[in-house]
Amino acid sequence: MKTDNDLLLRTIKGEHTERPPVWLMRQAGRILPEYRALRQEAGTFKRLVETPALACEATLQPVDALGVDAAILFSDILVVPEAMGLPYEMQEKTGPWFPKVVADASDIEKLRPAELAADELQYVYDAIALIQRQLDGRVPLIGFCGAPWTIFAYMVEGKGSKTFSTAKGMLYRAPELAHRLLEHITATSIAYLKNQVSAGVQVVQLFDSWAGLLSPQQYREFSVPYLQQIAEAIQEVPKTIFAKGAWFALEDFGTLSFETVGLDWTIDPAWAKQQLGTQKILQGNLDPCQLYATPETVYQAAQQMVTSFGRGHIANLGHGVYPDTPLENVRAFVSGIKASSYAGF
Amino acid sequence: MKTDNDLLLRTIKGEHTERPPVWLMRQAGRILPEYRALRQEAGTFKRLVETPALACEATLQPVDALGVDAAILFSDILVVPEAMGLPYEMQEKTGPWFPKVVADASDIEKLRPAELAADELQYVYDAIALIQRQLDGRVPLIGFCGAPWTIFAYMVEGKGSKTFSTAKGMLYRAPELAHRLLEHITATSIAYLKNQVSAGVQVVQLFDSWAGLLSPQQYREFSVPYLQQIAEAIQEVPKTIFAKGAWFALEDFGTLSFETVGLDWTIDPAWAKQQLGTQKILQGNLDPCQLYATPETVYQAAQQMVTSFGRGHIANLGHGVYPDTPLENVRAFVSGIKASSYAGF
Repeated sequence: MKTDNDLLLRTIKGEHTERPPVWLMRQAGRILPEYRALRQEAGTFKRLVETPALACEATLQPVDALGVDAAILFSDILVVPEAMGLPYEMQEKTGPWFPKVVADASDIEKLRPAELAADELQYVYDAIALIQRQLDGRVPLIGFCGAPWTIFAYMVEGKGSKTFSTAKGMLYRAPELAHRLLEHITATSIAYLKNQVSAGVQVVQLFDSWAGLLSPQQYREFSVPYLQQIAEAIQEVPKTIFAKGAWFALEDFGTLSFETVGLDWTIDPAWAKQQLGTQKILQGNLDPCQLYATPETVYQAAQQMVTSFGRGHIANLGHGVYPDTPLENVRAFVSGIKASSYAGF
Repeated sequence: MKTDNDLLLRTIKGEHTERPPVWLMRQAGRILPEYRALRQEAGTFKRLVETPALACEATLQPVDALGVDAAILFSDILVVPEAMGLPYEMQEKTGPWFPKVVADASDIEKLRPAELAADELQYVYDAIALIQRQLDGRVPLIGFCGAPWTIFAYMVEGKGSKTFSTAKGMLYRAPELAHRLLEHITATSIAYLKNQVSAGVQVVQLFDSWAGLLSPQQYREFSVPYLQQIAEAIQEVPKTIFAKGAWFALEDFGTLSFETVGLDWTIDPAWAKQQLGTQKILQGNLDPCQLYATPETVYQAAQQMVTSFGRGHIANLGHGVYPDTPLENVRAFVSGIKASSYAGF
């Protein structure tokens, strides 16, 4: 697959590039007026996710509108639990909601086997193929899925939560049951990512959105081994782990088979490098709230970030861009990075 | 003020005690059936907070029912913004909501001056006096307030939030305005805590519930200096800082005038001691979700925690006890600690 702008891929390979590549988590979304129009046209969020032509359009919008160095598939991490047998509803005000959850062993037995579950997501693979045709090699396409612990959290809790105390409770109450479900999610995620790769994604990212809710010991027992199973299974493309709030896991991440580690805004890049110990590419990590300031301030902050990370860095935010971020500030962030240079390094 | 069980006070002074004292954040609350009855009798949460006889009863319930080594005033951190001029409503499903918020300089000018704001909270001081009469020296009474950044977050955001992006946005957009509001909150908190001490509290705790949302640099600029102002102003009683998610601030906390540092469940006690550098009493930090397991497991986990902290420790959870925690497991936590001993240390 030829890629005209292969800055992202060269950076991940450890090549000396002229500047860091830049993209934003949740760049395909409400910050763009054309996304809001598309979302309205689609009627529901799920229709947007499940219709390849619409998901393709949402994916390409930021590439055209912002000039970012990568496209990321427009989708949702919750398509995996749905494919496994727990459909979700996306409620406008309160977020995701699952009418059925996993509470005991019999609920796990009712779930679809991994390969069959992955087969349910043909609409995603169709979207990827369509995106690649329309991208026509302009920038690389990133695929993704949720990390097993985060998907587990939704499947047990049944909705978003500040504490995910029901899901965490299962780890303490029934650790063997929890491991069984995590294994099932892991197998499904591997099959799903392999299909994404076959369909055309060139990098994959795992989102462990609720990593920070676990204690370090729990994270080491209930998340890290499953992350590594996925990283080892996906040899075809480079892999990124973004585990929000998991400052305590960086030392572990240094030993895993991910090429890139995403950082949230609480993590200092020098400290991260020291914790990781090994040579990893870092991704992140400007505070999304920095983008509420003026375009001038955002531009400067973006350039300061480039300096503080040094080489081996993919410029991004430390979390998904917030939907009410002024578009001119998103542009200032991208311009700040694109105007930066490693010439002086 | 004589206190029969002064284990908490002796521990904070650094004396060699027989075991750690134990209490639970949010022990006066929904875990107790007698609290749920009282809450229903009161009609609204605010009536419970604002009626000294009812707040007194809620405060004493866990002392009687659980045999903890400290009472903590039943109240809410949001009484401070209300006293400053921003009334709050407590909505059953969605939590706190402020009809008025601080958006600009004129909103700050309209707030009540610190001393006058503190005077608005006579019902709290009346509750404290009543509690001390009824406690009759059984255990020490802990007072509290929110840390300035956390109170700021509510006053600007106007409600609970996963990101508090409006409040954080102000730190980037209008840092001088933010500092002005933080100074005002700090002055009010000092006046409020001094009145609490005059009324009879023997220890005070600051809750920086939204500490973990800030970057380390922001925390150092917008939270730490105000925490220290409060710690320096309150010389009469020992002070505890509990800043949830602020793993990155422990090194700073080592330099502040708080005797005790509360830890959430993500923090390893040995690591905390190393970060703090100086001799601080530590408080915490069992994962509240551990209390969803069996009583036997909870009992063991409580005892393991005592061992892992060693001396200079106040046993507690790493967050407020969750309302759906089985009461027998709360009891197992308290018994596990009370049966522990430093004899072998």
